[in-house]
Amino acid sequence: MARVLPKALVFDVFGTCVDWRGSIIREGKQLNRERGWDIDWAGLVDAWRGDYQPNMAKVRKGTLPWMNLDALHMMALKNLLPAYMGATPKKAIKAAELDHICRMWHRLHGWPDAVRGLKRLKSGFIIGTMSNGNVGLLTNMAKFAGLPWDLVFSAEWVQHYKPDRETYLSAPKMLGIKPEEVMLVAAHKSDLDGAAKHGLKTAFVIRPLEYGKAFFEAGKYDLKFEKRFDYNAKDFGDLAKQLGC
Amino acid sequence: MARVLPKALVFDVFGTCVDWRGSIIREGKQLNRERGWDIDWAGLVDAWRGDYQPNMAKVRKGTLPWMNLDALHMMALKNLLPAYMGATPKKAIKAAELDHICRMWHRLHGWPDAVRGLKRLKSGFIIGTMSNGNVGLLTNMAKFAGLPWDLVFSAEWVQHYKPDRETYLSAPKMLGIKPEEVMLVAAHKSDLDGAAKHGLKTAFVIRPLEYGKAFFEAGKYDLKFEKRFDYNAKDFGDLAKQLGC
Repeated sequence: MARVLPKALVFDVFGTCVDWRGSIIREGKQLNRERGWDIDWAGLVDAWRGDYQPNMAKVRKGTLPWMNLDALHMMALKNLLPAYMGATPKKAIKAAELDHICRMWHRLHGWPDAVRGLKRLKSGFIIGTMSNGNVGLLTNMAKFAGLPWDLVFSAEWVQHYKPDRETYLSAPKMLGIKPEEVMLVAAHKSDLDGAAKHGLKTAFVIRPLEYGKAFFEAGKYDLKFEKRFDYNAKDFGDLAKQLGC
Repeated sequence: MARVLPKALVFDVFGTCVDWRGSIIREGKQLNRERGWDIDWAGLVDAWRGDYQPNMAKVRKGTLPWMNLDALHMMALKNLLPAYMGATPKKAIKAAELDHICRMWHRLHGWPDAVRGLKRLKSGFIIGTMSNGNVGLLTNMAKFAGLPWDLVFSAEWVQHYKPDRETYLSAPKMLGIKPEEVMLVAAHKSDLDGAAKHGLKTAFVIRPLEYGKAFFEAGKYDLKFEKRFDYNAKDFGDLAKQLGC
């Protein structure tokens, strides 16, 4: 199949590049051990991530003013944490610790193929984030996880969350290239459909364990490759191979 | 001297990281040979760079609407080129070639210590551009010259050229840190003074050959280290050493 290659690849980050759920549960359990807390981290992280889309939707609709993802994460954490504390004494969690917990989203680990795959892709293309995460979060995470971005595109630069067109189109606009010269790489079909609507190319990469093993084994994860996407790949290595790098 | 280290280093690019003058003259002379042109590249590049500050000042004052640096470079090139064509036939330079010439600014080479020095600095700090160059220009240049930025801060993101405060302050704001946790690294004292005015730390790095050998030998380059800067360095390797990485 002869295809015109894109010039830049932009990546959804949470779930596509990094294992947010596994990373937070692992770090949280370690915190429980170190500090004698009894927080239900699996329950908390699922509820926390569950608040992600509804809270961004409020910003998109104007019900909330512009707030970056750190601020939305903190707002949700304060609401949710009391229900997941278990036997942890209420006073155990002070402001500095709330901040430390909130910044777990800055300390997420890449999927096993992420760093090596991105390095291969970087040899042939401009690679950047295309994320609702704020610039500081994405930059700290890149340093922590070793994600070798050329540059950071973030909802925060344009104060619009995906799937708003301003976010997707910020990449071609700022790179001075056409929308079809940019390809979104994501593990979520709705994100890819949003990008395609505004003329970007699309690459679907499956991340079967994003929501955990039980979710995957219950067959709830939609892993089906789709013809409507320009590429479908098992992981970043597979995508690099298909793109010839 | 005990100092609190910054968390992020942001770099002026033209002159500080890359040899714009030497790069354009070398590529231009090669073009003359290949295409039989007679363009005076040294004359052209000095005039071109000479138009840089006045044109940005027009944007800053509102005499010109927002235009990114590619657009300002093209405007200046069209004005200046006729005076530096020599015996080149006027019709020899078509639109595609004007564009190719204009994008010489995307294909600048780093100073000999730049890539290695930045890699050292990247091991200890977030490193980014802080440039009036547009995002696409800076990204293409990074790929071309191997400059290993963590992220790209550009006047274009905030539609303000340095020394406007919005540009300098975009780095701490977007990284979620204090102005004094960001240090501007630049070869130009006025740029450093601009950053200091808004609370950023400053590091002066000398680039004696930025304006060419004759300029340097005539003693026109102000190489003097200044106590008012937080650091003064001979090159990026020297700066890395002073910063302990």
